[in-house]
Amino acid sequence: MAGDKKQKLKARQARGFVDRSASEIMATRAMVATIQSVYELYGFEPGETPFVEYSDALGKFLPDQDRPNEGVFSFQDDDEQWLSLRYDLTAPLARYVAENFDALPKPYRSYRSGFVFRNEKPGPGRFRQFMQFDADTVGSPSVAADAEICMMAADTMEKLGIARGSYLVRINNRKVLDGIMEAIGLSGDENAGRRLTVLRAIDKFDRLGAEGVRDLLSGGRKDESGDFTKGAGLEPAQAQTILDYVTGQRGSNAETLERIRPLVASSVTGSAGVEELARIADLVGKSGYGPDRIVIDTSIVRGLEYYTGPVYEVELTFEVKDEQGRPVRFGSVAGGGRYDGLVARFRGEPVPAAGFSIGVSRLLAALTALGRVDSAGEKGPVVVCVMDQARLADYQAMASELRQAGIRAEVYLGGSGMKAQLKYADRRKSPVAVIQGSDEAEKGEVQLKDLALGAEMAKAIADNAEWREARVAQRVVPRSELVKTVKEMLG
Amino acid sequence: MAGDKKQKLKARQARGFVDRSASEIMATRAMVATIQSVYELYGFEPGETPFVEYSDALGKFLPDQDRPNEGVFSFQDDDEQWLSLRYDLTAPLARYVAENFDALPKPYRSYRSGFVFRNEKPGPGRFRQFMQFDADTVGSPSVAADAEICMMAADTMEKLGIARGSYLVRINNRKVLDGIMEAIGLSGDENAGRRLTVLRAIDKFDRLGAEGVRDLLSGGRKDESGDFTKGAGLEPAQAQTILDYVTGQRGSNAETLERIRPLVASSVTGSAGVEELARIADLVGKSGYGPDRIVIDTSIVRGLEYYTGPVYEVELTFEVKDEQGRPVRFGSVAGGGRYDGLVARFRGEPVPAAGFSIGVSRLLAALTALGRVDSAGEKGPVVVCVMDQARLADYQAMASELRQAGIRAEVYLGGSGMKAQLKYADRRKSPVAVIQGSDEAEKGEVQLKDLALGAEMAKAIADNAEWREARVAQRVVPRSELVKTVKEMLG
Repeated sequence: MAGDKKQKLKARQARGFVDRSASEIMATRAMVATIQSVYELYGFEPGETPFVEYSDALGKFLPDQDRPNEGVFSFQDDDEQWLSLRYDLTAPLARYVAENFDALPKPYRSYRSGFVFRNEKPGPGRFRQFMQFDADTVGSPSVAADAEICMMAADTMEKLGIARGSYLVRINNRKVLDGIMEAIGLSGDENAGRRLTVLRAIDKFDRLGAEGVRDLLSGGRKDESGDFTKGAGLEPAQAQTILDYVTGQRGSNAETLERIRPLVASSVTGSAGVEELARIADLVGKSGYGPDRIVIDTSIVRGLEYYTGPVYEVELTFEVKDEQGRPVRFGSVAGGGRYDGLVARFRGEPVPAAGFSIGVSRLLAALTALGRVDSAGEKGPVVVCVMDQARLADYQAMASELRQAGIRAEVYLGGSGMKAQLKYADRRKSPVAVIQGSDEAEKGEVQLKDLALGAEMAKAIADNAEWREARVAQRVVPRSELVKTVKEMLG
Repeated sequence: MAGDKKQKLKARQARGFVDRSASEIMATRAMVATIQSVYELYGFEPGETPFVEYSDALGKFLPDQDRPNEGVFSFQDDDEQWLSLRYDLTAPLARYVAENFDALPKPYRSYRSGFVFRNEKPGPGRFRQFMQFDADTVGSPSVAADAEICMMAADTMEKLGIARGSYLVRINNRKVLDGIMEAIGLSGDENAGRRLTVLRAIDKFDRLGAEGVRDLLSGGRKDESGDFTKGAGLEPAQAQTILDYVTGQRGSNAETLERIRPLVASSVTGSAGVEELARIADLVGKSGYGPDRIVIDTSIVRGLEYYTGPVYEVELTFEVKDEQGRPVRFGSVAGGGRYDGLVARFRGEPVPAAGFSIGVSRLLAALTALGRVDSAGEKGPVVVCVMDQARLADYQAMASELRQAGIRAEVYLGGSGMKAQLKYADRRKSPVAVIQGSDEAEKGEVQLKDLALGAEMAKAIADNAEWREARVAQRVVPRSELVKTVKEMLG
């Protein structure tokens, strides 16, 4: 039927969607397994929701988007209901918990990983499908749940090979920010939009610096391309209060708490937020997680609207080179916080929850930069060369024997000659090639070529005859000793 | 912000999409890892394409659908191009291979697993998202590739715990079927539609029996609900020839080959197909895979239009009870075949390929029926009970110590009393509860409750005081011996 169509289709990935290589898949698999092992140690169990949800169930909680469903892939079902591809793992979890509320143990600790989708303009390093790894504790109002997640984050980094000192879990509290905004007259429902604009301005601190944030807190900011972003419209004094809070001197947890306590003294919410931070610092400290691992940092806000209490972010503090070759910190690879309102959309009553999400690709990039990913990948299979198509069954039997001994092995199944076969073995990173021509078959022998040892040499060898002359990195053994000898060669 | 919306949303899964439980996820994970290990032993490497492709790249190869994109979830991108959720893993692989043709080692052996999506009416056991696990060899015209896949399928079943004799890899060849159809005058482009109708009729043999298939080969068939399916319009003699081929006596591979050889003697294609079957039987036989594992079976056709040569199916031959309690064979859990035309859509030249797909959920159901899935699941975490909220940090430190010793542990983070905490521990399948009230704390001790042993008893205990009186399945040890003792209790 393919021949029926005369026009030739262009083979191309959809815009913003990418294939992944074998080594990337292997590295992600190993990383995900490590994260799982830490989360399970903390009593979390796996959860999984489908890729597709009713659009209204996902709601308007998409990060950095003000309008419902903007940035989401949506399509209408044949019963007219709107379906969407999930854009994160938190909104589906909220739906899941609400739907199964009575059947779940509470607090419900669970983790999940998988791809999420954003209907956004793709760009360099910006994809429309990417993987997240989330953990959430639903049903606990205690900040001990937040403290636990922060410790789990620290353990995860170390288990992945990121040494203490190369990462930092930074915590803050939205209630403190709310207190600050209350103090400058930004409380009340009528200011909800401005409060969100303020949060998003602060969230850009790392990228824009204090003056950029001041512009976004005030009248607005024109970026390098000339695009103008409207500001929160704060007075200079109001903006200064925010900036003082955000950029205030970093110190010990006790010093930071002492610095911010008076800033929100007039606000019940703000003061409660400070005490929550103090409690988290105490809890993690008593479990041995000092400020070299988990530290209060007032510049952390997180960009998501739905957080209601503590927020946290994992920053990798080691330096990598930016595009201009300048050293920069690797930056944030994970974050989360308390979101007591998300399940409430369905339940009609607040359900306390705290969650944490790792950007899997970004963390993998960090591990790669640290040399923690074995980019060489696994050894390839032993390749049994085909010297005579009529004797394919004999070669197949050799591969079969090797596999039964637990050795990765395959028969070369292409139609090409010896040179191509060795080139193939080289590309597959085969450690050993098995060769049995008619001479060896008659004598009941096999040739075993150590491809790691002989790699350079093989490149220079032009043909079958010449190959057979070369005896370096090569052994001839009785056919009956095939498996035993290959085992030896693989060490 | 959740409180802003006064209307309460209904929490519900989208139609035909389902959540999965922790035990199902764990069982699937273990099963997928086992399949991976076998495929890697055969030299296959992992591959991954995105969930979204250009609709035209997926083509019209959807199983059991005659119109392009019927049964597919599609949506238009902002540049007007149509995107679709993948409906299988083969069409995206064809796109991937065509796009990366020169860079790939050939033959290219790869495997991939993941969810695929069908925009179909959901029904009992019929979902719109389900998982497949595929393996494909692209670039080998040799039926040795098909033979290898059949052996790999057999190994996979045994590695998963399905004993020899409880499964069968059944093989056939589309070329033989083409030869049969040629013999009854159904060759040529003008008969392509009827040939497909014939294939799909044969594919229903297991479900409808010989007479049902005869109806579908002839005028058509009315099912129990009164729905009429148009037939292929064959004459009685033509239909009989097809049925003779399909239902002919099952015997040894040699007997089957002898039976079908004369049926297609007049057809070059048909005869080539018979010889391919003979070659596969020879190859697998010489590697020790007898007809008790891999057998020629003329009733196998596979429902997909795109197969061009050998086709294979894994049937589980043990019996389970159907809805009426009658014993039936479990049936097909995987299948595949040669599809030389699929990559050609992009390349404009035929690219030989053979592939194989496992229905992951169906195979998991089979393993569960066989008792090969540990439905009890893993042991839950040790639960450290909270007797005094003010001493949370102490409890947290206990959990932290246990985790550092590699023991799953968590602090109870809910707000409830002792009874609820023990109920929680029970639901989490906790092996041990750690209890330290003020008395124990003063004495520097902890109580350790063996929950497996004490499960029944706990149910009868009404309150904290009564609980403390019960000494069965409970040990009191110095705080410093917490980790050591829990380790002992976990065996």
